[in-house]
Amino acid sequence: MKIRLINPNTTVRMTEVMGACARAVAAPGTQIDAVSPRDGPPSIEGWYDESLALPGLLAEIAAGERDACDAYVIACFGDPGLYAARECARGPVIGIAEAAMHAASVIAPSFAVVTTLARTCGMAWHLAERYGMKRFCKNVRATDIAVLDLDQPGSDARRLIIDECRRALDEDGAEAIVLGCAGMVDLCHAIEDAIGAPVVEGVTAAVKWAEALVSLKLATAKRGEYAAPLRKPYDGALAPWSPSGGGR
Amino acid sequence: MKIRLINPNTTVRMTEVMGACARAVAAPGTQIDAVSPRDGPPSIEGWYDESLALPGLLAEIAAGERDACDAYVIACFGDPGLYAARECARGPVIGIAEAAMHAASVIAPSFAVVTTLARTCGMAWHLAERYGMKRFCKNVRATDIAVLDLDQPGSDARRLIIDECRRALDEDGAEAIVLGCAGMVDLCHAIEDAIGAPVVEGVTAAVKWAEALVSLKLATAKRGEYAAPLRKPYDGALAPWSPSGGGR
Amino acid sequence: MKIRLINPNTTVRMTEVMGACARAVAAPGTQIDAVSPRDGPPSIEGWYDESLALPGLLAEIAAGERDACDAYVIACFGDPGLYAARECARGPVIGIAEAAMHAASVIAPSFAVVTTLARTCGMAWHLAERYGMKRFCKNVRATDIAVLDLDQPGSDARRLIIDECRRALDEDGAEAIVLGCAGMVDLCHAIEDAIGAPVVEGVTAAVKWAEALVSLKLATAKRGEYAAPLRKPYDGALAPWSPSGGGR
Amino acid sequence: MKIRLINPNTTVRMTEVMGACARAVAAPGTQIDAVSPRDGPPSIEGWYDESLALPGLLAEIAAGERDACDAYVIACFGDPGLYAARECARGPVIGIAEAAMHAASVIAPSFAVVTTLARTCGMAWHLAERYGMKRFCKNVRATDIAVLDLDQPGSDARRLIIDECRRALDEDGAEAIVLGCAGMVDLCHAIEDAIGAPVVEGVTAAVKWAEALVSLKLATAKRGEYAAPLRKPYDGALAPWSPSGGGR
Amino acid sequence: MKIRLINPNTTVRMTEVMGACARAVAAPGTQIDAVSPRDGPPSIEGWYDESLALPGLLAEIAAGERDACDAYVIACFGDPGLYAARECARGPVIGIAEAAMHAASVIAPSFAVVTTLARTCGMAWHLAERYGMKRFCKNVRATDIAVLDLDQPGSDARRLIIDECRRALDEDGAEAIVLGCAGMVDLCHAIEDAIGAPVVEGVTAAVKWAEALVSLKLATAKRGEYAAPLRKPYDGALAPWSPSGGGR
Amino acid sequence: MKIRLINPNTTVRMTEVMGACARAVAAPGTQIDAVSPRDGPPSIEGWYDESLALPGLLAEIAAGERDACDAYVIACFGDPGLYAARECARGPVIGIAEAAMHAASVIAPSFAVVTTLARTCGMAWHLAERYGMKRFCKNVRATDIAVLDLDQPGSDARRLIIDECRRALDEDGAEAIVLGCAGMVDLCHAIEDAIGAPVVEGVTAAVKWAEALVSLKLATAKRGEYAAPLRKPYDGALAPWSPSGGGR
Repeated sequence: MKIRLINPNTTVRMTEVMGACARAVAAPGTQIDAVSPRDGPPSIEGWYDESLALPGLLAEIAAGERDACDAYVIACFGDPGLYAARECARGPVIGIAEAAMHAASVIAPSFAVVTTLARTCGMAWHLAERYGMKRFCKNVRATDIAVLDLDQPGSDARRLIIDECRRALDEDGAEAIVLGCAGMVDLCHAIEDAIGAPVVEGVTAAVKWAEALVSLKLATAKRGEYAAPLRKPYDGALAPWSPSGGGR
Repeated sequence: MKIRLINPNTTVRMTEVMGACARAVAAPGTQIDAVSPRDGPPSIEGWYDESLALPGLLAEIAAGERDACDAYVIACFGDPGLYAARECARGPVIGIAEAAMHAASVIAPSFAVVTTLARTCGMAWHLAERYGMKRFCKNVRATDIAVLDLDQPGSDARRLIIDECRRALDEDGAEAIVLGCAGMVDLCHAIEDAIGAPVVEGVTAAVKWAEALVSLKLATAKRGEYAAPLRKPYDGALAPWSPSGGGR
Repeated sequence: MKIRLINPNTTVRMTEVMGACARAVAAPGTQIDAVSPRDGPPSIEGWYDESLALPGLLAEIAAGERDACDAYVIACFGDPGLYAARECARGPVIGIAEAAMHAASVIAPSFAVVTTLARTCGMAWHLAERYGMKRFCKNVRATDIAVLDLDQPGSDARRLIIDECRRALDEDGAEAIVLGCAGMVDLCHAIEDAIGAPVVEGVTAAVKWAEALVSLKLATAKRGEYAAPLRKPYDGALAPWSPSGGGR
Repeated sequence: MKIRLINPNTTVRMTEVMGACARAVAAPGTQIDAVSPRDGPPSIEGWYDESLALPGLLAEIAAGERDACDAYVIACFGDPGLYAARECARGPVIGIAEAAMHAASVIAPSFAVVTTLARTCGMAWHLAERYGMKRFCKNVRATDIAVLDLDQPGSDARRLIIDECRRALDEDGAEAIVLGCAGMVDLCHAIEDAIGAPVVEGVTAAVKWAEALVSLKLATAKRGEYAAPLRKPYDGALAPWSPSGGGR
Repeated sequence: MKIRLINPNTTVRMTEVMGACARAVAAPGTQIDAVSPRDGPPSIEGWYDESLALPGLLAEIAAGERDACDAYVIACFGDPGLYAARECARGPVIGIAEAAMHAASVIAPSFAVVTTLARTCGMAWHLAERYGMKRFCKNVRATDIAVLDLDQPGSDARRLIIDECRRALDEDGAEAIVLGCAGMVDLCHAIEDAIGAPVVEGVTAAVKWAEALVSLKLATAKRGEYAAPLRKPYDGALAPWSPSGGGR
Repeated sequence: MKIRLINPNTTVRMTEVMGACARAVAAPGTQIDAVSPRDGPPSIEGWYDESLALPGLLAEIAAGERDACDAYVIACFGDPGLYAARECARGPVIGIAEAAMHAASVIAPSFAVVTTLARTCGMAWHLAERYGMKRFCKNVRATDIAVLDLDQPGSDARRLIIDECRRALDEDGAEAIVLGCAGMVDLCHAIEDAIGAPVVEGVTAAVKWAEALVSLKLATAKRGEYAAPLRKPYDGALAPWSPSGGGR
C-alpha cells in the first residue's frame, strides 16, 4: 500500500526525518511517500501559519489522488486541513494529533500533550475536544521552543521536553505523554526512556493507523460532509485548485 | 468608525448586497467597506472551498490593517479564518455565525439554523459548539439550495427557506431562526414576516456587534493565542503573505 | 430608542454612576433611563438578596412596558430575573453578565471573571454555564470587597481588583477580564490601563448589545418559554403584580 | 423530626392534598407541616410566577427556622428559591424536582418528565442540567393542562397524563416517569398501575429524602455559597425580609 | 422492610462494622442484613479486585431475592456490579457512592471525595460522571491508606483523612466531604466534628436512600436495560450462576 | 508478534469465526491466538452476563501474560473487563467497541451502532461516552436478534441488520456504521456492499489497532490506575485468581 505522509510546512529536513521515522515503523509492504509543499510557511506556529499552509497541503492531496495513494497522514500537530483533505481523498486521511490521542487513550487512563510554543496550546485543546479526547487530556504544556529550533543543538530541546514531560506526570497526574509537534518525531524513544512512562508520537502513530484502515478496506465516507468538493471554477491565482467535481 | 465587511468568496454581487444591508443597520458614523478577494472560490460550500478562501480573506485583513480599519466582519456562515484573522487584526474580528448565534440566544430560549446545502450542516454544528451555543441550537436544517442560486428567481429560494423555518418552529420547537448563509441577508425581514418568529441574520448582527465592541474600546487580546503571527519568510507563491512579526 | 437600565438594588448612587457610564457609550439617538426599585435589598450578594430584588425589578419592567421602552438592561452581575423579565417585555432584555461574557468571548480565547464576594462565585459559574460561556471562562475570582464598599475610598478596591486581575492573567492564563459587579462600572478603563489586557464591563456592554438588537429590529421570541405571563390574580400584597395576560 | 413542606403557590387545596400524601409516606416520628404563603401567585406556570412566589416562600423558610424545623421541602416542580432557601436554613432544603430525579435515576436507566404546560418544559430541562440529571432525562413532555385544572373533573387530567406517559415509554424509550408538577401528587399510583412502569412523584420523594438527611444528621453546608444571607436592612415594603445576619 | 447490605469483599470485620453503623441510622421497622461473600478479594483496590468480587456479590443478590429482600445496598465505593444487580433484583439497588454523592449535592454546592489509594481515584471520577455528579465534585483525593489498614491503630488513618479533608476544603473550595471507602463508615462523625463541614458517608446514606425508595413503593424498572437476565445455561464452574430467566 | 483475541463468552464456534476473520486482516508476522473461557455465559446480553464473563476473561489474560502475548483484544462489543485486563497486562489491551468507534470517527463525520438486543443499547452508549466517541455516535439501533441466532440460517440476521443500517443512514444521518456485536464479524463486507457506506467491524479493527500499538512499542501505562493489581490472597473458590503483585 502507498501512504502519503504530508508535512504541511516547507522545511524539507523535517520532512526527511519524518519519512525515515515513518518507514521504521511501517509494515513490509507499505510505501511511505514523505512530501512537503514548495509554497507556504516553513513552520506552523499559530492559526495564520496554518491557514496559509492549506493550499500547499491540499495540492499534495490532489497529487496523491492522481498517484492512487491509499491513505494520507497530515504531519503537523494542528491537523490542518483535515476535513478538506477528507473531502478530496477516497482513502482515509489521518491527523497526527488524532492518531496520537487515540493511541494514548488506549494505553493509559489519561495523557498530557507536551508541545512547542504556548500560543499553540489552545489549538491542541481544540483538537482534543473535536476528537472526543478532552476527557483523557489532563493538560497541554508548552516548552516554548520554536519548531525550527527543535533539531538545533543549541536549543537544548530534548532536556526541556523531558523536564516538561516529568512535570506532566508529577503535577498533572498524567500517565502517558503525547508529543505535540511532528518535529519531535525522532525524540520519542529517548524521552520515553528518560521518563519511564509511555510517550506517543503522532507521525508514527498515524502511519500505523493509516495502514490499519487500509488493511480493513475502510475508506472515507462519501455521504454528507466528506463528499467530494462541488465542481466549480475558482478565480484568479487559485484557479488551479478548482474542484473537478464529485466524480474522479 | 471603519468596519471592513469581508465576503470571503469572489462573487461581487453578493458582496454588494451584503454591503447595502450592512449600511442599512449601521449607525450614522460608521463606514462599511464591503470587500471580497479576487482570488478563490466563488461560493463556499464545504471545507475545501473554505480552505481555499483563506489566502484571499487574510489578504483583506492585512489590507484592512494598513487602512486602519477598526473592526472586521467575516461574512460567510462558516466563519472561515476567524482565529487567523484575530491574530492579524488589532481591532475585533467577528464571524457572522458567531454574532447571529449570540443574538439569537439573547432573544429566544433556543434557535434553529436554516442553511443551504446539507453537506455544510456539520460545519454549523461545529461552530455552535465552538461558541458555546450548542445548548441553544435545536437543529441545523438544510434547504439544499446552492449558495449562488439563492438570488436566482427560478430557485424558489424564499419559499423553500420559509417552509424550512416553519418546520424548525413546529417540529424542533425552536423559538427563533438563525439564517445560515450570508447570501440570505436580504431575505431576513420577509421571512420574519412570513413565519411570525424572530429571524436573526448574521451579516447585520455582526456589523452591530462590531460597532458595539469598537464603541466599548475593546480590541483583540494580544496575549497568547491571538498574538500577531510570528515573523517568518514564507516560501514560493505565498511569500507575499509572510508575517512581518509581532510589531506593526 | 429608549433603553431602560435597571439596577435591581435600591442604592441610587450606584444607579447614577451606571447611568452616566451607559450614556458615555450610548449612540446619539439612545435615551438611557437608569432606574432602581424603592423596595428591596440595597446590594445583591447572594441568592437570598437576589430573590428579594425580583419584585422591584419586575415592577420596573412593567413600568418600562407602559413607557414603551425598546429594550432593558438588568444591571447586576447575577442577571436576576432575566427569564421572568423576558416573559414581560416585548423588546430584548439583556443581562450584564451575559453581554460581558459574549463580548469577552469574541475578543479573546478565554477570560476570567473578577468579582466581589467569594460567596457569589458559584452564581457566576452558573451563569457562564447557562449562557454557554463556561468553555471560555478560565476562573471566577473574588476580591472579597463588599458591593457597597467598592466606591468607598478606604476600601482600596481599585488596587485589590487590579491585583486579582493580574493573578487571573498570570495564574489562570486568561487573556481578558470580565468585571463581575455592576458597581465596578467606572473602574473599567483604569484597570485595563493597569493590566495591559482587555477588560470587559457588563453595564456598558449590555447597553451596546441592547442598541444592536433594537437596530436589528429583534424582539423577544413570544413562542414558548418567553410568552407573556398567563393572566391570573395574585393574592394579598402581591396582587399589584398580577399578570394581565398574554395580550398587552 | 419536623419537616416543613412549602407549597409556594397560594392555593390551599393543593397544599392540603400534598400534606396528606406526604403524611402517608412519612415515618412514624415525622411531623409534616404543610404550608403555603398568603401572598403571591395561585399557581406557578412560568418564570414570572415563580419570581413572585419567592417572597412568600422565603418568609415560610424564615418562619420555619423560628419554629426549629429540621428540614424543608419546596413543593413546586420548578424548585423555586432553592438556593436562597438553603442560605436561610440550617437543615437540608430539598426541591421536589431534585428528589424525584435522583430517585428515578436510581431505579431506572432513564426517565421522562411529564408536566403541565409546554411553556414550563424549558424550566424542567434547566433543573435536570443543574442537578446533573440531564443524562438520565430522555424527554420533558407537556400535557397542556393548567396547574389548577389538574383536580377539576372536567379536565380529563388523569387520562391525558397517562397517555403522555405511555408516549414517553414508547417513543422516547424512557423506563420510568417523573411527574412534573406537585399538583399531580395524588395521581402517582393510579398512573403507575395504568402504565406498568415506575412513576416517581416529587413531593413524596422529597419528604423521604429530607427524612433521610435529617436521620444522617446532615445539614446545609454553611461555608461559601449557602452561608446565611449577610445582615443588611432592606428598603421599603421588603424591610421585613431584611436578613439578620450570619448568626441566628 | 428488609434491606440487604452487601459488603462485596470478604472481610467480615468490615461487614460487621458497616452493619452496626447501618442499624444506627435505620428506621425502627427496618431489618439490616449485612452480608459478605465467602469467595473473592478481601479488599477492593482496583478494577481487577472489583471484577473478581462480582460473582460473590451477585450470589448475594440472588440469595436476597430468594429471601424477599426489599432493597439492596452495595457497600463498596466503586459501586461494583450495580447494573448487573439491578437486572437481578425486583427492589431498588443503591450504590454507596451514588447515595453519598446525591446527598452531598443536596446539602452543599460542591463536594470533594477523600478516598484510600490513589489508583482508585479514576474509578471515583468515573462514577461521578455516570451519576451526573461530576459537576458537583471538585476533587477526588487519596490518602494512600490501604483499605484493610483503615482500622489498624498504627495506620494513623483518622488523622490522615482529616488532614486530606481540610485540604479539600481549603485548596479545592469544596463545601462538603464524601468519604470514598465503606471502611471509613465509623469515622464519619469524628471527621465532621474535626473539620466543621458536612461529611457524607455512603453506607449510611445508601441505607436511608433504600428505605426511602421502599417507602415510596418504587422498584427497579424492568423495561429495557434492567430487565431480568435472559434465561441461559452458563458453562463450567459458573453454572450455578445461570439466570433462570425473566420470570421469578 | 502474538495477539491474544479473547472471546469472553464460551461459544467456541463464535471464537473460531472471529479467529479466522482476524487472521484474514493480520499482517504476515502476526500470530492470532483466538481463545474463549470454558467457564461462564455462552453469550453476553446484559450486565449480568458480562459480570459473570469476567473470571474467565481475566484468566485468559493471566494465561496470555505467562505465554508472553504482546497484546490482547477483548472481542465482545461491551468491552467487558477492559480496565481490569489493563491492570494485568504489560502490553496493550483493546476493546472491539473502542477500536471500531475510533476507526469510524476517522473515516466519517459520524456513525451509528447497529447491535443485537435492545437491552444492550445503553451499554453501547455508555462505552461511546467513556471513549469520548459520543459526539460521533448518532444512534445505537437494535435488531432484536439474539447473539447466538446471528449465524442461524432461520434468523434472517443479514437482512434485518442491513435494513437497520439503512435506517441509520437515512433517518439518523449517520455516514458510517459500526457493527455492535462480535458475532457479526463475518457479515461486515456483505453489509457494506449492500448499503454503500463504510461498515466498521470491531474484531478486525481491534486486531489492527493492537498490531499498530505493538509496532509502535507502546505498552500499557503502569503508573496509577492501570498498575498491576496489588498482591493479596483471594478467598475460597476465587483463590486461583489472587494477584501475585506488582512485579511480574
